[in-house]
Amino acid sequence: MTQRRPAEPGDPLEAIETPALVVDLPALERNLDAMAAAVRGSGVRLRPHAKSHKCPDLAKLQMRRGAVGICCQKTDEALAFIDAGIEDVLLTNEVIAVPKLDRLAAAALRATVGLIADSAPGVELASAAAARAGSTLDLYVEVDVGAGRCGVQPGAAGDLALLATQSGSVRFAGLHCYHGAAQHLRSPQERSAAIASARAKVEQALRSLASRGVTCSIVTGAGTGTWRHERDSGVWNELQPGSYVFMDADYARNTAAGDDLRFEHSLYVLASVMSVPDARRSICDAGLKAFSFDSGLPLVGDRFGVAYVKASDEHGVLEASADEASLQLGERVRLIPGHCDPTVNLYDWIVGVRGSVVECVWSVAARGALG
Amino acid sequence: MTQRRPAEPGDPLEAIETPALVVDLPALERNLDAMAAAVRGSGVRLRPHAKSHKCPDLAKLQMRRGAVGICCQKTDEALAFIDAGIEDVLLTNEVIAVPKLDRLAAAALRATVGLIADSAPGVELASAAAARAGSTLDLYVEVDVGAGRCGVQPGAAGDLALLATQSGSVRFAGLHCYHGAAQHLRSPQERSAAIASARAKVEQALRSLASRGVTCSIVTGAGTGTWRHERDSGVWNELQPGSYVFMDADYARNTAAGDDLRFEHSLYVLASVMSVPDARRSICDAGLKAFSFDSGLPLVGDRFGVAYVKASDEHGVLEASADEASLQLGERVRLIPGHCDPTVNLYDWIVGVRGSVVECVWSVAARGALG
Repeated sequence: MTQRRPAEPGDPLEAIETPALVVDLPALERNLDAMAAAVRGSGVRLRPHAKSHKCPDLAKLQMRRGAVGICCQKTDEALAFIDAGIEDVLLTNEVIAVPKLDRLAAAALRATVGLIADSAPGVELASAAAARAGSTLDLYVEVDVGAGRCGVQPGAAGDLALLATQSGSVRFAGLHCYHGAAQHLRSPQERSAAIASARAKVEQALRSLASRGVTCSIVTGAGTGTWRHERDSGVWNELQPGSYVFMDADYARNTAAGDDLRFEHSLYVLASVMSVPDARRSICDAGLKAFSFDSGLPLVGDRFGVAYVKASDEHGVLEASADEASLQLGERVRLIPGHCDPTVNLYDWIVGVRGSVVECVWSVAARGALG
Repeated sequence: MTQRRPAEPGDPLEAIETPALVVDLPALERNLDAMAAAVRGSGVRLRPHAKSHKCPDLAKLQMRRGAVGICCQKTDEALAFIDAGIEDVLLTNEVIAVPKLDRLAAAALRATVGLIADSAPGVELASAAAARAGSTLDLYVEVDVGAGRCGVQPGAAGDLALLATQSGSVRFAGLHCYHGAAQHLRSPQERSAAIASARAKVEQALRSLASRGVTCSIVTGAGTGTWRHERDSGVWNELQPGSYVFMDADYARNTAAGDDLRFEHSLYVLASVMSVPDARRSICDAGLKAFSFDSGLPLVGDRFGVAYVKASDEHGVLEASADEASLQLGERVRLIPGHCDPTVNLYDWIVGVRGSVVECVWSVAARGALG
C-alpha cells in the first residue's frame, strides 16, 4: 500500500525521514542533458526506458529534452504513464494475456501504444484486442540479437512481420532488437564486440523482412551500457537507455574502464545509523527491503572509509576502516544502490533535492506495476 | 503506488492476473495450527513476527490461535497493524528518530506498543516521546546473543535496564534476545549449538539485571529456524517466528535435515509463460521485481523437470529438462520464493486460494513501510 511521503518540498535535508530514495537534481539534470546532446543530430531518436524510474515526472523531463516517447516493460506500468499524460509508450515486452491486451488496446484510443511480439499468437491476440477496442496497436517484432531471452531468430522475422502487416488492427512498426546481456559486460571491448554481432543479426532480420516485401521504419534497442554502439551502427534508429538517469554501482563498474561519456550517480538511499555496537561497526535502517541486492551491496557515498558489508531484512551493517572516524548514532549515510531499477521499485516516492533543500517529491506511480 | 487487485473473491484460479502473490489457504492454516499447537501448554507465549507477511488479515488469524500480539520491524509497519486493529505490537528494532518515536508514542494511547533499545539515547528519546504524548511505551533492552548485529553485550544489560526503570514514561518490559544469524544455519546441530551459546548469554544478561535489582518478566526472541530450542530452553518465554506461515526455499533447505516439525510451502508467485523461444527454454513474466533474490532463485512448484535459471527485471528464464514436456505459451507456473519476507514486500495484495477458487484478496497493508 502507498506509504507516507518521507519529506515535503521546502524541507531541509535533515528533515527527510529515512530510509528514503533521494535524487540529486543537478546530477540528474546533467545526465538528462548529456544523453539528449549525445543523440542530437545523429539521426537516431531517443525513447528512454521508464522501467528504471517508474516516475511520470521524470519521464516528462526526458520528453522536454527531445525524447519521442518512453518505453515500459509491463502493461500496468505503461498505463500509469499514459494516465499521467505521456502520449507515446512502447511496451518492450511480449503480452499475450487477453485482459492486459484489452487494457492496452483501450489506452491506444488516447495515446500511441506499441508492444512487441515473438510469436504468431502474440500478433493475433494483440490484433484481436485492438479490433475489439476500435483502436490500433503498434506492433514490433522482437528479434533475439544475442541475449538468448525472448525473440525470434533473425531469419524468422520476415514471416512474423508479414503476419503483422496482414492483421487488421495492428500496425507493423519495426523491429525490437535489444541485447540485454551486452549491457553489463565489463569492458568496452566486450560490449563493442557484442553489439557488432547483434548488428549482423539485425541486418539478417532486415533481409528477412525485405524478402517478404515488408518495410521496416524503426529498429529500436540499446541500453545504458551500449547505446553509443547502436547509435553509430547505421542500423538502429531508436535508443532505449534507462539507467543513465540515475546510474548505479553496477553500471559504474561497467563504465569505469575508459568510456568517453560518463554519467553520474544521481540516486541514493538516505539511511540513518540506529545502533553503534562498537567503534568500527554500526547498523543502519536500510536492508533487504530498501535495496535490491541482485547486483551486489550498495556503495557508501560520502564516507570513503566506510563499507556496507551485510544486510538483513531491515538492517544494514556498516564497517568503518581503522583510519575512518566512527559513525555516530543518528548519523546519515548516502548509499548508492547496486541496481537502480528494482531498488526504485521498492519506493513510493522519490525525494528530489537541490543543495540542502527538498525541491520536489515525485510519485513512483508505476511502483509495483507487475501486471 | 498501490496497484490493482489481481483477482476478486470467487474468481477461478485461471482468472488471477500474473504475476500475483498467492497463498494456499489450507496449507497456511496447517502451518498456523502447527505452531499454535507447538507452544500450547509450554508456558511460552507466541508473538509471531509480522514482517514476514505485512498483512493484518493474516495477523488476525494468528491472534485467533492464541498469539499474544505481533512483532514488527519498522515504525510505519507497526502503525499499519495498529490502524487495522491489532492491539499489541512489539517493534523489534532500535528507533531513535524523534518523529517516528512521536508516532509510536501517539499510537501507544490506543494499543500496547513496545520497542527495543541498545543505547542510553534510545531509552531516553523513547521516554521523552512517551512523556510528550502522555502515553507509556514498553521498552525491551536488546542483547547481542550471537548475531553480531545490534544489541548490548550481556554484561551491560543491567545498566541499560536500570536506566529504563528510572525513565518516567517507558516501562522496562524485558530482554530482546534474537539470534538472527542462527536461523539460517543449515544443520539442526549447528542451530542447537548456536542457541545453547545464546542461552548462556541470556543467563549472563539476567544476572546483570539481578545485580542492579531489576526484575525481568519477558525474554523474547527466536525465529522459524530455531524456535524449538528457545521454547525448551527455560529462559526464553516468548517466541517470534515469522516465516513459518509461508516457508520459503531457503528455510526449506534449512529444515530438510531431520527436523521433527516441518512447515509447508503455502506461498508462491503465480507466473505465466509469455515467450517460448525453443522447446527447452521459455520465459515467464516474473523477474527481479517479482522476487527478492537475496537467498537464491525461486523453485518451480509443479513441474519437477523445470528450473528457474535466470532473472532480469521483468523476465524469468525457465529451462525444461530433456524428459520434461515443453512449457506452452500462456502456461502458468507456481514459483516458490527464495526468501519470503522481502518478496512479500513487493506486492500490494495476497490472493488467498482454496482448491481452485479465490477465497480472499488480502491487503499487504505494510508493504513498503520502510520508515
